[in-house]
Amino acid sequence: MIIIMKETASAKDIDAVEKKLTGFGFQTHPIYGEKKTVIGAIGDKRQISMNEILLMNGVENVVPIMRPYKLVSKELIREKSVIDVGHGVTVGGNQLAVFAGPCAIEGKEQFAKVARLVKASGANILRGGAFKPRTSPYSFGGLEGEGLEIMRAAGDELDMPICTEVMDTRDVELVARYADIIQIGARNMQNFKLLREVGKIKKPVLLKRGLASTIEEWLMAAEYIMSEGNDDVILCERGIRTYETSTRNTFDVSAIPVTQELSHLPIIADPSHATGTYKYVAPVAKAAIAAGADGLMIEVHDCPECASSDGPQSLKPEKFDKLMKELKAIADAVGRELVL
Amino acid sequence: MIIIMKETASAKDIDAVEKKLTGFGFQTHPIYGEKKTVIGAIGDKRQISMNEILLMNGVENVVPIMRPYKLVSKELIREKSVIDVGHGVTVGGNQLAVFAGPCAIEGKEQFAKVARLVKASGANILRGGAFKPRTSPYSFGGLEGEGLEIMRAAGDELDMPICTEVMDTRDVELVARYADIIQIGARNMQNFKLLREVGKIKKPVLLKRGLASTIEEWLMAAEYIMSEGNDDVILCERGIRTYETSTRNTFDVSAIPVTQELSHLPIIADPSHATGTYKYVAPVAKAAIAAGADGLMIEVHDCPECASSDGPQSLKPEKFDKLMKELKAIADAVGRELVL
Amino acid sequence: MIIIMKETASAKDIDAVEKKLTGFGFQTHPIYGEKKTVIGAIGDKRQISMNEILLMNGVENVVPIMRPYKLVSKELIREKSVIDVGHGVTVGGNQLAVFAGPCAIEGKEQFAKVARLVKASGANILRGGAFKPRTSPYSFGGLEGEGLEIMRAAGDELDMPICTEVMDTRDVELVARYADIIQIGARNMQNFKLLREVGKIKKPVLLKRGLASTIEEWLMAAEYIMSEGNDDVILCERGIRTYETSTRNTFDVSAIPVTQELSHLPIIADPSHATGTYKYVAPVAKAAIAAGADGLMIEVHDCPECASSDGPQSLKPEKFDKLMKELKAIADAVGRELVL
Amino acid sequence: MIIIMKETASAKDIDAVEKKLTGFGFQTHPIYGEKKTVIGAIGDKRQISMNEILLMNGVENVVPIMRPYKLVSKELIREKSVIDVGHGVTVGGNQLAVFAGPCAIEGKEQFAKVARLVKASGANILRGGAFKPRTSPYSFGGLEGEGLEIMRAAGDELDMPICTEVMDTRDVELVARYADIIQIGARNMQNFKLLREVGKIKKPVLLKRGLASTIEEWLMAAEYIMSEGNDDVILCERGIRTYETSTRNTFDVSAIPVTQELSHLPIIADPSHATGTYKYVAPVAKAAIAAGADGLMIEVHDCPECASSDGPQSLKPEKFDKLMKELKAIADAVGRELVL
Repeated sequence: MIIIMKETASAKDIDAVEKKLTGFGFQTHPIYGEKKTVIGAIGDKRQISMNEILLMNGVENVVPIMRPYKLVSKELIREKSVIDVGHGVTVGGNQLAVFAGPCAIEGKEQFAKVARLVKASGANILRGGAFKPRTSPYSFGGLEGEGLEIMRAAGDELDMPICTEVMDTRDVELVARYADIIQIGARNMQNFKLLREVGKIKKPVLLKRGLASTIEEWLMAAEYIMSEGNDDVILCERGIRTYETSTRNTFDVSAIPVTQELSHLPIIADPSHATGTYKYVAPVAKAAIAAGADGLMIEVHDCPECASSDGPQSLKPEKFDKLMKELKAIADAVGRELVL
Repeated sequence: MIIIMKETASAKDIDAVEKKLTGFGFQTHPIYGEKKTVIGAIGDKRQISMNEILLMNGVENVVPIMRPYKLVSKELIREKSVIDVGHGVTVGGNQLAVFAGPCAIEGKEQFAKVARLVKASGANILRGGAFKPRTSPYSFGGLEGEGLEIMRAAGDELDMPICTEVMDTRDVELVARYADIIQIGARNMQNFKLLREVGKIKKPVLLKRGLASTIEEWLMAAEYIMSEGNDDVILCERGIRTYETSTRNTFDVSAIPVTQELSHLPIIADPSHATGTYKYVAPVAKAAIAAGADGLMIEVHDCPECASSDGPQSLKPEKFDKLMKELKAIADAVGRELVL
Repeated sequence: MIIIMKETASAKDIDAVEKKLTGFGFQTHPIYGEKKTVIGAIGDKRQISMNEILLMNGVENVVPIMRPYKLVSKELIREKSVIDVGHGVTVGGNQLAVFAGPCAIEGKEQFAKVARLVKASGANILRGGAFKPRTSPYSFGGLEGEGLEIMRAAGDELDMPICTEVMDTRDVELVARYADIIQIGARNMQNFKLLREVGKIKKPVLLKRGLASTIEEWLMAAEYIMSEGNDDVILCERGIRTYETSTRNTFDVSAIPVTQELSHLPIIADPSHATGTYKYVAPVAKAAIAAGADGLMIEVHDCPECASSDGPQSLKPEKFDKLMKELKAIADAVGRELVL
Repeated sequence: MIIIMKETASAKDIDAVEKKLTGFGFQTHPIYGEKKTVIGAIGDKRQISMNEILLMNGVENVVPIMRPYKLVSKELIREKSVIDVGHGVTVGGNQLAVFAGPCAIEGKEQFAKVARLVKASGANILRGGAFKPRTSPYSFGGLEGEGLEIMRAAGDELDMPICTEVMDTRDVELVARYADIIQIGARNMQNFKLLREVGKIKKPVLLKRGLASTIEEWLMAAEYIMSEGNDDVILCERGIRTYETSTRNTFDVSAIPVTQELSHLPIIADPSHATGTYKYVAPVAKAAIAAGADGLMIEVHDCPECASSDGPQSLKPEKFDKLMKELKAIADAVGRELVL
């Protein structure tokens, strides 16, 4: 780490910092500028010492040198991860992954119908909510166990992997029994106990970016999962909270190249939750693929106006079908494969 | 609700919206302006219909009339809630509540020492972390069960209520056995399963505002707890995420009068997490009391530079003691009681 | 407008609001719900009355029905505007507009060289700064008049329109004498006096979105220009301020379809200022075209490391050339023309 | 500055950076850690070189050591500035400055009446808008020259300094002829040409924080003014833009202690623009004084519901009078003087 001393720091202050550092086994390298002194410190127990140093007399700032994550970092694993999500589908390879389905699972037939339609249009992974995080305690919270069964049946019938959210540590085992990919929703991105639990299972995890999380915090959440032994983490950008109100969230398209530069993990985009409005789903989906995303998660409902959740952002199957054809052209333009 | 039709909406569009609404049992009241038509609709099943209407041809916007929360609302309960947190202490009455203690519980003696000091300075509730949410999986996560025992012993010795965080539905019962007040941290404000669990127990809940939550979402989180039967919710403003980086978060002092206008629930302020820097804790604490907060939560550590968590924002006991005296003057100025 | 009365509003309060409204010539349409009364009001002098009503007893909220802008609105002009910027180039038609050049003009030869290179790669408009807004008073502020002459000479030599920024009402005439397109920078988006001045001239205006402006405020800034008689406004999304720090700003890709839905004005994207880092310029540029932008503004410098301003976000000419080829593939995929 | 090399940087990369630095006259001090190398560089031409270095092979980051401002810094001038604003009033001393008056000047009698009332309640500086920045081109833009005359007459009659905004470089001379304090509004905080102009005159400048400006940018704007020779800058916190919509802006109370730690300039607070709602003006005003602000700017109107601008946030004179008495108690509590 680097310790920047204040202009007003005395020789005694500088000396005290050096002594403290060497006491912790650090090697120190003071650099005396015209106005300020800077001390480079090489050693190990970073975190605790940073505070200890920061609070000493005459210290202006302490700058860490190492990034806080390891396992997710591209410095460790240089090859991009390609994650096998079952049923012959991978995420992170040359072929794009398209997760599609309704926001919430409302019934067996409804789900099966939408599932068949999205498969016909080229989607290769089914998505749907059995456990639904809802802002209001009075809103529909999902079919839970029954929803999982409905999804699994549809996945098996169509030979497609299914992805669904888990919200509670107590449900991880249950959800893992049915799902091929376990989703951690935006509101649980820093539910650290839940991250540890899904880190212990042997199923790929789709990790949505938190509502207002930095990219570093997001990668640290992935680090939690990987630190428990589960390497199969897929990132999902779904819009961040800003002051702009014309869309539900602000889709951070730059997050795609930024995470790809920092990490080996694949990243997909969720234009449905990012925009909150079906009209903007197609342009944002195309933007994400053009920017290099490894796939998309799109809400499709055969009757958006009667959806129990998030109807206004759902595409009708025919709009989804048209979008997939447009996406294929973009995929071709950027050298990615999309099989319709 | 109010439906605003587009300028381009046809008579047929307007007619279709009215028919849909009356089909759902709504009474409709169309108002024909020079350019736009607006339809007032009186009826019941709001949520689902709003989407259904929003997606119809010619509809520009749908404006809800009722606020989404009920139990937390001042419209229902006009008297401010005064919450009994045990050991003769209340939150929300004329007397200010001061929660103080270290960020994390590090050991029996350390905690007991800080506890005695903060009590001597006038704090009336002990705070401390047994389960710690940490951004990094490699950071100290708390003493867990042992930490709870340490806190309880100190609380009993000093006859003070204790407040500590729960992060996992599986730990609610355990934490409730020890704590007088159960804290829901900022990162779990929309962990809806956890909210429901703490709603089922008979202990007051301290509900921190989410990192980037609106006041409405925060009140909806409180509504979750109350909807399960637990009326004893204390709000805690702890700073929100903004673009400004000179403080860890931006303390939203206006949230104090805003929540007091909308809700009967008491609200306290946490200047330690809001600012992230001990130097700014005192001015922000004074601001909160001047703005009408019902209390404060302040991190105090006898050795901030050796704290295992959040040292830079912790006050030394002597600084806390000085602050309490300054706060007493502010409390007097705004007609609140602070017993030192 | 719609007036929503509080649950606690008395019949007298409601009556007073109605009287006030009818006194201002409004027709009122009260709707009595089970808990709340809502009053629809049809009439004219909106703004002043909204406040007057909002402050009356028993009033909870006043909801406007009409959008605040007219001339920029798609409700008025349904056809998308195609703006002739001179030298045979238009912005807003099927062909994409590509503004390219260095951040600041540093000298005659430097600019001429970059200009020739970007033209060879397919750019059709030259950009460059003669007057530079700089955060620090000690940074290079541009060559001013000399810079304008350099740009004009290059534009004439290459038969290309030139675009440059004006920062001061006193310089509008001077800049308009040289430039084909006058740029209003992000920091001046709400410099209303400057907007009025560029509204009075007969040159197209490139209006960058403010650092933290809403789309509505941005359209209102365009309305200022149009209200003075200048219809030729080109919007430019250049990233907004958020809490995320891994890019300089957060490029709001959704702003492209949103402004296109609300307004007839063309919109281009500036990935250089949005990201602040050359590495992310290409993916964001591609995303913008895929999302439907009418063009791009890209900083190109033959020696980014010796640029007097914004070097880290400038592309080298060979990288720009490669990007243009990639963009052509995206343009083809979305049915837009890019002539290389 | 400090150059942090990537883990993957080669010895050749490190060598090249050192050569480049020494070529610019820097002394270099490399520190070889286990994984990364860090180079400390002592020298002068910082800005240009930072980019040049940042773009070199193997460089991960460049960390500046010196803050970008000088004249505003507390490191240069350690004593807090006390600014004489005329008519026997100072800002920054022990006595609090209270700027009060209507948002816009609407007429001679209206202004004189409000002026007399606010003086009677203890305000010591008159505020009012002659030139008004308005989001809409169709809103009332102020009485301009006539407004200045009205203000001056009231100021002279009551022997009070007057403060009013200038929005255009062409009006600086005119406004300076009438006003005692010249206000730079939030939207013009980075109108650098205007900052330079007000830096050249001999009148105190009230510099509002930009809508979404960092504290560092705000201090750099003050540096612009001071760099032209005008040392009399008063900072004014007026709320920043966040995602929260229950108040117009989010009042950043921490900005008070933060700017006081970094700068010798006085800081006042504007709770009227920060909250946008008269109901929240009093609690936020009290919070600001408790946090250490040197004064307040409060909008007062004898008929808020008929105000031509910002009525909903204006206090009636009797509410202002009550607030001043409450503020006196807070001022006493924090050892500041408020003469009623």
